[in-house]
Amino acid sequence: MTPQRVTLITLGVDDLGKSRSFYGALGWEPTREQEGVIFYQINGLVLGLFGRTALAEDQGRPDATLETGAITLAQNFASVDEVDAAFAMAVSAGATALKKPQQVSWGGYSGYWADPDGHVWEVAMNPYWPLNDDGSLTLPTGD
Amino acid sequence: MTPQRVTLITLGVDDLGKSRSFYGALGWEPTREQEGVIFYQINGLVLGLFGRTALAEDQGRPDATLETGAITLAQNFASVDEVDAAFAMAVSAGATALKKPQQVSWGGYSGYWADPDGHVWEVAMNPYWPLNDDGSLTLPTGD
Repeated sequence: MTPQRVTLITLGVDDLGKSRSFYGALGWEPTREQEGVIFYQINGLVLGLFGRTALAEDQGRPDATLETGAITLAQNFASVDEVDAAFAMAVSAGATALKKPQQVSWGGYSGYWADPDGHVWEVAMNPYWPLNDDGSLTLPTGD
Repeated sequence: MTPQRVTLITLGVDDLGKSRSFYGALGWEPTREQEGVIFYQINGLVLGLFGRTALAEDQGRPDATLETGAITLAQNFASVDEVDAAFAMAVSAGATALKKPQQVSWGGYSGYWADPDGHVWEVAMNPYWPLNDDGSLTLPTGD
């Protein structure tokens, strides 16, 4: 059995300084910086930025071209206004707007943007998934 | 300011049933299943499996081909033996072995595997990053 656990999300990026500036414009502050890597403490785990070619090498396939799109990282918020504000801040920081926040079929409110390397983020409000006080999420198991 | 928060990681997959079986073979149990989507409660956030083409549509770009590789999800463990066991279990379940777990330059022990859709997972032991009792990770801020 492996645990249902993710302790580190690493984003491969082309230009570490550019990505640092981009996430800095969202208000993110590095928790640790080491040579070639930047770590941010997030809710119970860590998000890292690391060079894309270095990441390919670390994965044991230095000649691979690492691509993006098929994983999304979502930030859930308590209100539509917070979703709108987060989306506007990302676009203002240079994100590519993929989908303007809007009411969606599952009953929530959701938008998507991509960072300078094409990593896709969702900003959402899900009325059925209230956040814990610390911003973490525990799935309701009922219905 | 946006929070340093990830509440949902969504993996776009080609065959939801196949992915469900793969993660099931790792011991993962769905917390919720709805039409076309499977959610797993993980440490303080949620991991979801969702059809890749449905994800592209949800992202507001139905014609996009969503690719993988440039984001890695890491599972940290307390020991080398646990890393080896997790890697072996993944390969046995049908994962592609990218890098056999080995001692690495930063002083830890790390391997990589890819799931049936090419989503990349790292299994690692980092002696400088002890896990919390609940499997969550709080970065040391010293040195």
